[in-house]
Amino acid sequence: MAKLSSLDDLLVHELQDIYNAEGQILKALPKMAKAATHPDLKAAFDEHRVQTEGQVRRLEQVFKLLGHPVKGKKCEGMAGLLDEGKKTMEQDADPAVLDAALIAAAQKVEHYEIASYGCLRTYAEMLGYTQAAQLLQQTLEEEEAADKKLTEIGESGVNQAASAAGVGADEEE
Amino acid sequence: MAKLSSLDDLLVHELQDIYNAEGQILKALPKMAKAATHPDLKAAFDEHRVQTEGQVRRLEQVFKLLGHPVKGKKCEGMAGLLDEGKKTMEQDADPAVLDAALIAAAQKVEHYEIASYGCLRTYAEMLGYTQAAQLLQQTLEEEEAADKKLTEIGESGVNQAASAAGVGADEEE
Repeated sequence: MAKLSSLDDLLVHELQDIYNAEGQILKALPKMAKAATHPDLKAAFDEHRVQTEGQVRRLEQVFKLLGHPVKGKKCEGMAGLLDEGKKTMEQDADPAVLDAALIAAAQKVEHYEIASYGCLRTYAEMLGYTQAAQLLQQTLEEEEAADKKLTEIGESGVNQAASAAGVGADEEE
Repeated sequence: MAKLSSLDDLLVHELQDIYNAEGQILKALPKMAKAATHPDLKAAFDEHRVQTEGQVRRLEQVFKLLGHPVKGKKCEGMAGLLDEGKKTMEQDADPAVLDAALIAAAQKVEHYEIASYGCLRTYAEMLGYTQAAQLLQQTLEEEEAADKKLTEIGESGVNQAASAAGVGADEEE
């Protein structure tokens, strides 16, 4: 592994990590859309796939601005998150409950990206890479909006349907 | 694996996941504190370990309130995130840059928890488990505060020190 001697090195290291992570997400999203039942959730996964393609292109621009080759490096964190999501999809589940579980899995993915793009944007700002920082901020805002949308889909219909699939609140208090 | 027939099942499934995740975090935090150089960062990791112990006890209360045995289930997502953090700590790095990298790794962990506790709190609310929802909300707020604190430590000193370790912004624009 290359030495992390400077914040520049860390910026490139984290860029390679998220570039690989976005590639993993691109492969997972069609499977998540297929596994989802609620039309709003299916549509959200499909829309986010298109958005992710744009984010990948934006990362390629950032690599170019920094004068580094476009290169990914296996993101173990995202691999673990998607592995968890895969296991959820394979589980024997009521369709409405599976939808709620898919939202939880997707929000964990979104939050990885929020943490990552937040750090990347800050490093780029501190190093004076104004244009790169703006591109990273743009993606950060998209991820935050995608997370919020998943919460709304959950609260507006999916979790209610999942809750109706169950026995209700008779076990506590 | 048990069938996910209801939102109750999903709540227990996610509780078991985060209970195991918190256990993994408890083991990782002393190593992160040891690897950190900046005194504020070391202190933050130490404080968060104590806080995490409280969060584990809170989860045990939630299991009890729901009438379920206290039990964890291997959280693959957290395993991946901590594996990534471990690799960062093993990397040949300038101490200030390693501090910045540790903040990034810790924020990814915090964001997993924010996503998880956010979903758990919502499920508990929807199912009418008021007391459980309050406990989960309390932890959610602690995780959000811990994430914010890491950002502040990064912006106030660590990232600047890391940036000074590098060559500055001469590669772009």
